[in-house]
Amino acid sequence: MSRIELYDTTLRDGMQGEGMSLSAGEKLRVAHRLDELGIDLIEAGFPSSNPKELELFGLLAHETFSHAQLAAFGMTRRRGAQAKEDPALRVLADCVAPVCTIVGKTWSLHLEKVVKVSREENLAMIAESVEFLRAHGKRVIYDAEHFFDGYADDRDYALDCLHAAAAAGAETVVCCDTNGGTLPHVLGAAMADVTAALAASGCQIGIHTHDDAGCGVACALAGVLAGATHVQGTLNGYGERCGNANLVSIIPNLQLKLGHECITAEQLAALHSASAYVAELLNLPPDPDAPYVGRNAFAHKGGLHVAGVSADPATFEHIAPELVGNRREVLVSELSGRGTVQSRAREAGIELDDEAAARLIERVKDLEHQGYHFEAADGSFELLMRRETGTLEELFTLESWRVIVERRPDGQLVTEATIKIWIDGERFVRTAEGNGPVNALDRALREALSAIHPHLADIDLVNFKVRILDETKGTDAVTRVLLDASDGDREWGSIGVSENVIESSWEALVDSLQYGMELSRAPRRETGRDSSVGLPDRP
Amino acid sequence: MSRIELYDTTLRDGMQGEGMSLSAGEKLRVAHRLDELGIDLIEAGFPSSNPKELELFGLLAHETFSHAQLAAFGMTRRRGAQAKEDPALRVLADCVAPVCTIVGKTWSLHLEKVVKVSREENLAMIAESVEFLRAHGKRVIYDAEHFFDGYADDRDYALDCLHAAAAAGAETVVCCDTNGGTLPHVLGAAMADVTAALAASGCQIGIHTHDDAGCGVACALAGVLAGATHVQGTLNGYGERCGNANLVSIIPNLQLKLGHECITAEQLAALHSASAYVAELLNLPPDPDAPYVGRNAFAHKGGLHVAGVSADPATFEHIAPELVGNRREVLVSELSGRGTVQSRAREAGIELDDEAAARLIERVKDLEHQGYHFEAADGSFELLMRRETGTLEELFTLESWRVIVERRPDGQLVTEATIKIWIDGERFVRTAEGNGPVNALDRALREALSAIHPHLADIDLVNFKVRILDETKGTDAVTRVLLDASDGDREWGSIGVSENVIESSWEALVDSLQYGMELSRAPRRETGRDSSVGLPDRP
Repeated sequence: MSRIELYDTTLRDGMQGEGMSLSAGEKLRVAHRLDELGIDLIEAGFPSSNPKELELFGLLAHETFSHAQLAAFGMTRRRGAQAKEDPALRVLADCVAPVCTIVGKTWSLHLEKVVKVSREENLAMIAESVEFLRAHGKRVIYDAEHFFDGYADDRDYALDCLHAAAAAGAETVVCCDTNGGTLPHVLGAAMADVTAALAASGCQIGIHTHDDAGCGVACALAGVLAGATHVQGTLNGYGERCGNANLVSIIPNLQLKLGHECITAEQLAALHSASAYVAELLNLPPDPDAPYVGRNAFAHKGGLHVAGVSADPATFEHIAPELVGNRREVLVSELSGRGTVQSRAREAGIELDDEAAARLIERVKDLEHQGYHFEAADGSFELLMRRETGTLEELFTLESWRVIVERRPDGQLVTEATIKIWIDGERFVRTAEGNGPVNALDRALREALSAIHPHLADIDLVNFKVRILDETKGTDAVTRVLLDASDGDREWGSIGVSENVIESSWEALVDSLQYGMELSRAPRRETGRDSSVGLPDRP
Repeated sequence: MSRIELYDTTLRDGMQGEGMSLSAGEKLRVAHRLDELGIDLIEAGFPSSNPKELELFGLLAHETFSHAQLAAFGMTRRRGAQAKEDPALRVLADCVAPVCTIVGKTWSLHLEKVVKVSREENLAMIAESVEFLRAHGKRVIYDAEHFFDGYADDRDYALDCLHAAAAAGAETVVCCDTNGGTLPHVLGAAMADVTAALAASGCQIGIHTHDDAGCGVACALAGVLAGATHVQGTLNGYGERCGNANLVSIIPNLQLKLGHECITAEQLAALHSASAYVAELLNLPPDPDAPYVGRNAFAHKGGLHVAGVSADPATFEHIAPELVGNRREVLVSELSGRGTVQSRAREAGIELDDEAAARLIERVKDLEHQGYHFEAADGSFELLMRRETGTLEELFTLESWRVIVERRPDGQLVTEATIKIWIDGERFVRTAEGNGPVNALDRALREALSAIHPHLADIDLVNFKVRILDETKGTDAVTRVLLDASDGDREWGSIGVSENVIESSWEALVDSLQYGMELSRAPRRETGRDSSVGLPDRP
């Protein structure tokens, strides 16, 4: 099996996505994470005079990577000039990266309508740019932009472009589906033609795809099946429009399904945390449904699935989740049986005999009928188990609370919450303002609790969702509030349900803090949810 | 080109996704939307004794669809019993749907470890179940569960299962990649074998895939390329784990790239709104990076792209976005084209010259930046136009409002709202209780207004949605409230945005009533909303 070279462009093409932004220091951390993951080539961007890029290449000059090589990205020379006089190519030639990737045109439509360059001049631009960088000791990768559109339009000219790069000394030529609309079978047929046509050149063939037809991953695989041995993509498929081909899906597909050994088994087991890490740095929520690494990727609902997986995981799982560092998730729902509940109790260290499990299932059914939904509220579910088994020490006893939201005649909006609670026989009355009713309640409650439980200051509410359960009842509808909280290390969910949105928020809020306290009492225990989400620094 | 039959299972398999939930009424609305989109078969679920499913099938009994046929879903008969004695098959035979889809086993691993049925008995279960439903006049679709795993394990037995269904009268046999781990090239090769093996039976071949390897869409296409003429999937790829094959990507791929005419050009142009509609009903944010229909799918960054697209859209776009009802992102917002705004104004009977239109566009951009979103808030948008052109007669002038929500020591929850407003120089102070803060505000406001505007009594708030715009900010996040109101005849939407959920609800509430009054002044005018968004009773 030939070795497939993995080329990551998260730091360059990935950053073209909407709202993507990383500081130079953060990019450096991503680069190290990619290196640890076993990525062969890390494209860092163009070492231009832009201060952020300059800073990054400045930082990179002092870094060592255990395996990865650094690639700088640029374009073929300008038309009608000499390569050595092109300032951008000069920057590439002088930069710290041993590898230079240059992109150039392949498609007449672009030559005519965008860059206004003749077909002959374009071939010269490709050849001379590659030669120039080779002469400066760089390994050169040639990215053939819009290759598949060009190929469909004029096969021979598209191949001429690749030949020009190969003859000039490019070690790798990469066929790029820049607009992302080529389907896998069409792409695969073109790639088979390319690999045959370039076989004599000894040049490595690469593939670079996008997800505009929802086939970015499949197109990358189709390229490999047709002979490509270099694959470009980004972590989590970040990138402009619909994103680049997602390396987090491509790597396990290559490794576990196509038998290519790209990275070690240990590195593959770090895939999940690498994916979560980058999402975290970008302040993007990890996609719960992501193939291989999503929280739901190995989630089982329903008793039959759970029973099947217990008999043999292969019955309902296409791979063992541990191979990519993920884990099986058993979702608690109306449909779940006693086994599910007992296995969740065991994980939480709660003794649950058959009778208690049966009682708990009845209770869950009852609550789900009212609108509760424990799938995403692992914290509340564990508290429920503890309450049902009498093993929960409540954080406080509630006397009352009150929220006032007032829009004053001068247009000012004032929100004030007062809580009255008892802790260990002592009464606490606290009032706080907030920018909304839940925020004010949160502040008032923490003010009362934090004297006794300073650990609460570490708990942040990171996510707040409101769902109206029977929307068609208008303002009479039942509201379900889901809160996600984090102590910087672990993350958990809680839930509240009521006709009154303030009451449901209060309920979720209290569970959130209560469960945070439970975790702090058993400090190293994992939450019921995916273990490494939100842990940027975990190995 | 053979016609490809589109089979949607959003209402059944799609509902297996984490946190998915729709009421029976909402499911009915989705079914009508699917029908309008040109979907051939709509799987509604199992017509069981579960109250929610019973309600849905009860509702469906009175519906007519312009094109789609309804499918009910069930399983093959239980082992060792007769089909006619199987209560679940009886339910299917008696239900309103003309089509029954039954799922059965194909893979020995499942026969041995999950259902504990012999290979011969499994074949009998398939054949007798199909025969039973055929004898009751149903068109039968046979879903071969785990087909590709079974095929890899024992090709001949997997084919025997399909032959058993076909020989018993199944019109369609569907090869399901239930665990979702099969790659497109492997799946395509198996499907080619299947279509050859079943050619003589005259049975239609279908394909049902999942996204666990990130190839759900590509696998569905691979099935079609190998001869399948029936494709199962869900809107937006909803479904358990990583989701089902996404029909919203599959349909344009089939139609625009493979040349199959599945739906009309008009229906294809409604793809974007159908996708957004279902996301909205589920209260899930639409995926901005979704292929074809995502907000970013045709977004252009950088001058070169924009210049290229101006010269020829094909330079940077794989299809014309209008074909699927999407648009190029150079237009910042849905409404930012002057032509769009002026045509909306004309519909509402508002004079809008070029200068006023330009000013309005700036205002909309500004509001959208704050989190407003007028697509579903046609009422608020028209009020905005009237306010900008000085043609709105405000219903009242606000002095102040106040909401108190109190949880008392006896556990009682009391919600009280007071409003102080001016109407025609007269001051009204009203207090009302409610089951939640918005309900109380609504009652207090109506009490003040209804003396002067008795028509308000006819306006119901039928739909109330809260979305947190930056969920990761916890309780500090901005909330967007969408309200749908109806006067029993027409329906309209309004919006409010604020850090404070009570303030955003108030804003939406006031717009809701104000727009209802506007309509009552021009009684027979249609609302500006997309004719089928949120209108349960419209054909």
